[in-house]
Amino acid sequence: MVDAFSVMNLVGLVAFAVVGALKAADADLDLFGVAVLGILTALGGGTMRDVLVGRTPASLQSVADVSVAFVGVGLAVALSSLVSGRLRDHPAIQLPDAIGLAAFAATGALVGAEAGLSPYGVVVLATLTAVGGGSLADLLLTRVPVVLREDFYATPALLGGVVFWALVRGGLSADFAAVACAVFVLVVRLVALRRDWSLPRV
Amino acid sequence: MVDAFSVMNLVGLVAFAVVGALKAADADLDLFGVAVLGILTALGGGTMRDVLVGRTPASLQSVADVSVAFVGVGLAVALSSLVSGRLRDHPAIQLPDAIGLAAFAATGALVGAEAGLSPYGVVVLATLTAVGGGSLADLLLTRVPVVLREDFYATPALLGGVVFWALVRGGLSADFAAVACAVFVLVVRLVALRRDWSLPRV
Amino acid sequence: MVDAFSVMNLVGLVAFAVVGALKAADADLDLFGVAVLGILTALGGGTMRDVLVGRTPASLQSVADVSVAFVGVGLAVALSSLVSGRLRDHPAIQLPDAIGLAAFAATGALVGAEAGLSPYGVVVLATLTAVGGGSLADLLLTRVPVVLREDFYATPALLGGVVFWALVRGGLSADFAAVACAVFVLVVRLVALRRDWSLPRV
Repeated sequence: MVDAFSVMNLVGLVAFAVVGALKAADADLDLFGVAVLGILTALGGGTMRDVLVGRTPASLQSVADVSVAFVGVGLAVALSSLVSGRLRDHPAIQLPDAIGLAAFAATGALVGAEAGLSPYGVVVLATLTAVGGGSLADLLLTRVPVVLREDFYATPALLGGVVFWALVRGGLSADFAAVACAVFVLVVRLVALRRDWSLPRV
Repeated sequence: MVDAFSVMNLVGLVAFAVVGALKAADADLDLFGVAVLGILTALGGGTMRDVLVGRTPASLQSVADVSVAFVGVGLAVALSSLVSGRLRDHPAIQLPDAIGLAAFAATGALVGAEAGLSPYGVVVLATLTAVGGGSLADLLLTRVPVVLREDFYATPALLGGVVFWALVRGGLSADFAAVACAVFVLVVRLVALRRDWSLPRV
Repeated sequence: MVDAFSVMNLVGLVAFAVVGALKAADADLDLFGVAVLGILTALGGGTMRDVLVGRTPASLQSVADVSVAFVGVGLAVALSSLVSGRLRDHPAIQLPDAIGLAAFAATGALVGAEAGLSPYGVVVLATLTAVGGGSLADLLLTRVPVVLREDFYATPALLGGVVFWALVRGGLSADFAAVACAVFVLVVRLVALRRDWSLPRV
């Protein structure tokens, strides 16, 4: 189980970095900006999560995660000159991106539970870990984060946090709950993409 | 005195959440966005304060504060379909909002003093706790925070931080200074609203 | 060596505060906004650095740094009514600004090494300390941070972080490496200004 989880995390880091770097290239940033937005999309959510619970961010301590994100940036730079059109809406991006959403939500919920947060805190950390990096990238491009506007993207992560909490509360181990959370988020996100779900407005 | 303070804090949480959620609904965010902006306006300032002094944010640990903020979000959703026009400029919002400003500035100054910050640090924490949540919400909507542009809104909180520091420096207890700070902020903010005060430009 | 370093840091604080306050005055913020953007440009990078490694921010604990930044804000307010045109492109701003970039990058690298971060972490902290405050100020004005778009400004700081890390890795003392890093950043930034360097786009 742990191995599947690590793989999901790796896939997510690459996919998020690709998405962030492509977004930056579309916005005509220079190479530094493209790299920053790729890295930030991949690692920003986890960094905010760690800062909130008082940990030194894993992203600043490990070499592996940043290196993996750089692979994503490199892929995006290579791809952006090969293909035209909105690459981000392509299934080849959307599937690994959904895998990343699922893995990051599960990690966030785990860290929240380990830090002894309230149920709300666990759900917030699951959601923030999953969508925080992309939202930071949107902010740096002075865009309203897309998750606040219309996408059914943060909602699966949030519900995944609720599932995690309910399972732990019900007596299951945190590791099992994390795997169930990730599977749940992945399925809901893929169904939402397929059915074009969105939330109502007020 | 402590009871009055808790009541002020509760009133502030609800009022800030209403203001943030209405802002999001005006900007045509979806339901997730409306909830996020309401919660963030209510709890964002305190969360930044806690992160800056190295505490795990109270907002992630207690259930009560988020629940109270959700009441504000619910109120805003209910109200926004009932009333038209700019609800935020209505006295029914402005008074509880001023009470929140006062309570949050006092809490920020207290936390700053407890953390052994410099006088500047105490004033910064009073101001940030009071206006940080609303400014974060403005940023997420890609607006220049209104407190930086024209409102006489951050200034009462900042002056309240100075009052707090001067009283503690003068030998009074931090608890008394916090109450005096809150009363001072509330009075200055209400007078500013009444007289339409603003700061000069450069 | 330490004395030269302190002087560079002081020069940087004043220059960054001047740049931030002028930016705010240009954007027609009120006096509070001008002060906030000046202080934030000077101290925001160091504050983010300290939060990331779990320190209480030096900016909230020491009186000296904020006082020095206030001098910069005062200078900017005085200058903005005396001169017209884009003061920020004047060598009288660009030289002290480059000195600040160099001093802040070196401080960031030092703090990163002390906190036991990975090589990436050291480079990130050098860059963030140097350009984080100005980028926060840009964000508050809802502008894409200029360092992400076109300026050869973050790159010298980033390369300075690499130089620092390579020297420490090569067995030199962190203090010596910090001085070398600062000299390197200053020289590269001044050459970049002179030659009008920029990074390629993707």
